[in-house]
Amino acid sequence: MTSRSENVTEPSGEDVFSRRKFLTVASAGVAGTVVTGRAVADTLADVPPREVGADLSGHGERSKFVHLAMLPEAGPGTRNVDPSDAINSKAPLGKLVGTITPTDLHYERSHSGNPELDPATHRLLVHGMTRKQLVLTVDDLMRMPSITRTVFIECTGNGWENWKKADPNVTVQNTHGLVSTNEWTGVPLRFLIDLVGKDRRSTWMLAEGADAAGVDRSIPLTEEIMDEAFIAYGQNGEPLRPAHGFPIRLITPGLEGNLNIKWLRRLKFGNQPWMTRWETDRYTQLLANGKAMQFQLRMETNSVITSPSGMMEIRPGYQRITGLAWSGHGKISKVEISTDEGRTWKQAQLNYPVLPKAQTRFQMDWVWDGKPTKLVSRATDEKGNVQPDRKSFIAKMGTNALFHYNAQQTWSIEGDGRVRNVLA
Amino acid sequence: MTSRSENVTEPSGEDVFSRRKFLTVASAGVAGTVVTGRAVADTLADVPPREVGADLSGHGERSKFVHLAMLPEAGPGTRNVDPSDAINSKAPLGKLVGTITPTDLHYERSHSGNPELDPATHRLLVHGMTRKQLVLTVDDLMRMPSITRTVFIECTGNGWENWKKADPNVTVQNTHGLVSTNEWTGVPLRFLIDLVGKDRRSTWMLAEGADAAGVDRSIPLTEEIMDEAFIAYGQNGEPLRPAHGFPIRLITPGLEGNLNIKWLRRLKFGNQPWMTRWETDRYTQLLANGKAMQFQLRMETNSVITSPSGMMEIRPGYQRITGLAWSGHGKISKVEISTDEGRTWKQAQLNYPVLPKAQTRFQMDWVWDGKPTKLVSRATDEKGNVQPDRKSFIAKMGTNALFHYNAQQTWSIEGDGRVRNVLA
Repeated sequence: MTSRSENVTEPSGEDVFSRRKFLTVASAGVAGTVVTGRAVADTLADVPPREVGADLSGHGERSKFVHLAMLPEAGPGTRNVDPSDAINSKAPLGKLVGTITPTDLHYERSHSGNPELDPATHRLLVHGMTRKQLVLTVDDLMRMPSITRTVFIECTGNGWENWKKADPNVTVQNTHGLVSTNEWTGVPLRFLIDLVGKDRRSTWMLAEGADAAGVDRSIPLTEEIMDEAFIAYGQNGEPLRPAHGFPIRLITPGLEGNLNIKWLRRLKFGNQPWMTRWETDRYTQLLANGKAMQFQLRMETNSVITSPSGMMEIRPGYQRITGLAWSGHGKISKVEISTDEGRTWKQAQLNYPVLPKAQTRFQMDWVWDGKPTKLVSRATDEKGNVQPDRKSFIAKMGTNALFHYNAQQTWSIEGDGRVRNVLA
Repeated sequence: MTSRSENVTEPSGEDVFSRRKFLTVASAGVAGTVVTGRAVADTLADVPPREVGADLSGHGERSKFVHLAMLPEAGPGTRNVDPSDAINSKAPLGKLVGTITPTDLHYERSHSGNPELDPATHRLLVHGMTRKQLVLTVDDLMRMPSITRTVFIECTGNGWENWKKADPNVTVQNTHGLVSTNEWTGVPLRFLIDLVGKDRRSTWMLAEGADAAGVDRSIPLTEEIMDEAFIAYGQNGEPLRPAHGFPIRLITPGLEGNLNIKWLRRLKFGNQPWMTRWETDRYTQLLANGKAMQFQLRMETNSVITSPSGMMEIRPGYQRITGLAWSGHGKISKVEISTDEGRTWKQAQLNYPVLPKAQTRFQMDWVWDGKPTKLVSRATDEKGNVQPDRKSFIAKMGTNALFHYNAQQTWSIEGDGRVRNVLA
């Protein structure tokens, strides 16, 4: 049940800064800010008094001082959308910490809204080139052996707003909010394959959703995919939310978001792709030479600085640069940050554990001298894939395509401390 | 920044069942259930039609078909509590999957309700035997280097309902609902220690909360605790919830829940414990000989089967036994399950990654023959600590104490398939 890729990177060697080294820079900066900015006290006089609290209840809700929400959009760059026109909703990456995305803020992408299925009547048909054809209930699946994996899911269109131009007045939620990381629990695809007795000649699987749009995709049955894919019923410890496929969805770690079929109603085994409209029209890539690329399934090596990021303001002095990196190919092995527009690079610290095909938080200390500059991050994964700069990316992919944008993100720091979205 | 204990166990050797071995038992059981229980189809006739969905929005809420809530209590075994009398609220372990506890269902324990503090005015005083005395804002802390760790927190009173007797008609939420696992993010205690210049002779730290009860505890500054403790502002990717200390709390991985001081307003360094009422009256252990034990800080090696568990009903045939194990001493190395009242034991499969001082999910296949029996689980951690049976536990701790109950939990399976809470 435990595949190679469930191994976890441990901190070692050059790719980790020692605590002491980390502290040297930061202590100077933070202590300076704290001590020069405020009077120092050795009593409790500056600390507000104790407070009587609210009653305990069945649910621990958010503080009234915390304002977090996804951003619904009707398409790239749309603003103030009527909810009925929304086709995706972006996660507020700039306001999140750690690596897990809060369950209700995991980005959403839907082609016909979020159906509210009854788990008692929902069924999963497993058929095609198999010895048995099965119709499974949700209870059947929940009684089977399960795995739990923390993985990112990313809409293949994440980043497309920056493909051709960059609106300076957007946040990281606008530019990169279509990726999230949750802990998912469910039944390994391998288990179902054994259960129905898949024909050895079957090399493709069709997964189909119960949404009105009937999103269905052909998935090649490589060893990596068969080792890692699972039929999830759990998300961050609880049943899936309707927006994420309740009662069941497919999880294909590292592959395009749309292959992680939500509201899963059918798995069919065959020996060639079904050429559904989602892989012949939608989700193909128009290249510079006019040809279209199909089945570009695995998400690329990617990263973004989430703080400081678009529309934030910083002051001269100590800064903590932090962000998220991810790769559909495996674990992140390194994130480098440039604070001088890409001329020089320093290695950021990675928060551990680094899990394969999950987002990894990175951070680095920096003292801003108050002069205009540009911040850039560049991720490398364990397979040696390096996130390309924008020029290399465009040279390779042209400007007709819409998906798998993973060029390095540049944030411009203006002289007044404002942070703006720009192209490198 | 990365301590020894952040290493992660990888699957290897005897303590992991192979996928194939796992499937052999399970395939037989599940396939039997599925095929004999229902007609088999090779069309979509049995699968409900596709559904038009609801609009996307700023928050992905729970399905109307999912009913999850904590259980507020006024004390051990109380039922139907007036909210103003509630002192703790238990997590619904029997309905959860994976290892992360949903943020709004993380158990709560409070001595004077849940204060709603304003993060703009809240302060943390750091003083005592230090070179500098600092008053820090929440923003100061959020600009410092951070770590992210997935750890369990457990109320020291978890399990006390079963210390002297066992009510047969309770669930695992009643018996074990005062433990949860979340991903926490914050500033390493070591960083603050360096920042204020702790005196080498300081061996204890007082942590004090801003709740009306002013819970404060003395914490010995062992290397392990200084390596691992941190001041958290993040919980499962977002700011702390008010019930969990918003805007900041102390996290002391592996130690009693009450040492993870919520609504943290003060850290004071000294060279002896302060002997607060929380460590001289509350949270001491009255032993059989009439003496009281103080500072029993580290939570024990523990486990519980969450399914099947109290008040559930099972049918003869294939079952998936699953549950959670945890230890304040480090990683879980092994969980054994007995399906014959403790006479024989089989090793359960652990879900990976196994993280130190976090809950670990375990599972095992079992075919129930329909005869009355008892299920028991027994955890072992990487330090070799083995969860005791009830008789050994009582022999050691007597029946006057209230805290750190970690005896093996026994679930009785009645002839009619009902599951009941019993003492071994």
